[in-house]
Amino acid sequence: MKPELHADLEALSFLVGTWTGEGKGEYPGIKPFLYGEELRFSHAGKAFLAYAQKTWSLEGDGPLHFESGFWRPQPRSGLEIVVAHPFGLVEISEGSIEGRRIALASRHLVPTSTSDPVEGFTRAYDGTNGSLSYECAMASSGYSLRRHLEARLIRAGD
Amino acid sequence: MKPELHADLEALSFLVGTWTGEGKGEYPGIKPFLYGEELRFSHAGKAFLAYAQKTWSLEGDGPLHFESGFWRPQPRSGLEIVVAHPFGLVEISEGSIEGRRIALASRHLVPTSTSDPVEGFTRAYDGTNGSLSYECAMASSGYSLRRHLEARLIRAGD
Repeated sequence: MKPELHADLEALSFLVGTWTGEGKGEYPGIKPFLYGEELRFSHAGKAFLAYAQKTWSLEGDGPLHFESGFWRPQPRSGLEIVVAHPFGLVEISEGSIEGRRIALASRHLVPTSTSDPVEGFTRAYDGTNGSLSYECAMASSGYSLRRHLEARLIRAGD
Repeated sequence: MKPELHADLEALSFLVGTWTGEGKGEYPGIKPFLYGEELRFSHAGKAFLAYAQKTWSLEGDGPLHFESGFWRPQPRSGLEIVVAHPFGLVEISEGSIEGRRIALASRHLVPTSTSDPVEGFTRAYDGTNGSLSYECAMASSGYSLRRHLEARLIRAGD
């Protein structure tokens, strides 16, 4: 039986489901790349969304990136997210929900002892047109915050 | 098509699949509780396992806890894991793989700005008898590291 959405998730209800689409990535020192993506937000009747992203190369190089974690809306339209990255990083980002626009900036980025640090992430999501678009900027490898990813996803399932 | 297991995951290959079972939880200040659990380790041909745990009350109180993240084996039998917790915590734990026994201790536990800190976790997994048992100890709320969870799971799927 599917639980009812927790009242605290009302502002994020437009995200619940599975989204698929394509994006492009770039960063100083790497070749720009195109990727496919599946993004899933699910809930269990509690005050958070489970979040799982996977991406794969559109140039035949197989899986690219994965992320998983939880999105936690807070009183007064705030949002905090906790995310694990398989390259050896944990992330806490915080931000705001304005209608179907969400802006997040990293507050804590902690690498494992074998991984390279990442200095900053920003994430901007836009669900205003029925689709879900996002842009992600990153500060890493001595570069200040700059464009890293952008994608547009459409709803693929509940 | 199922990708081949990455060579770096050989020591963790016994974990891959879905495990279900039951456990019990305790901690100073809370009523001991029994829980059901599903634990899933999956891979995408890369050098990490994706990890997703969910637990639910065996006393009719619905979902209890979730965790998700990635397990990253390192050269010379080391292991590091990155985990996100929906109560607002990110975890990096490190430890060792000895045959089918795994011992991990937290290195970084970072709460979100709205969450209570956790001072420490240890996790001990034992897959030596075909089943998968674990014990988790926690230091939190002013208490030093002490028993929190133990469970025994059996393989429920690939």
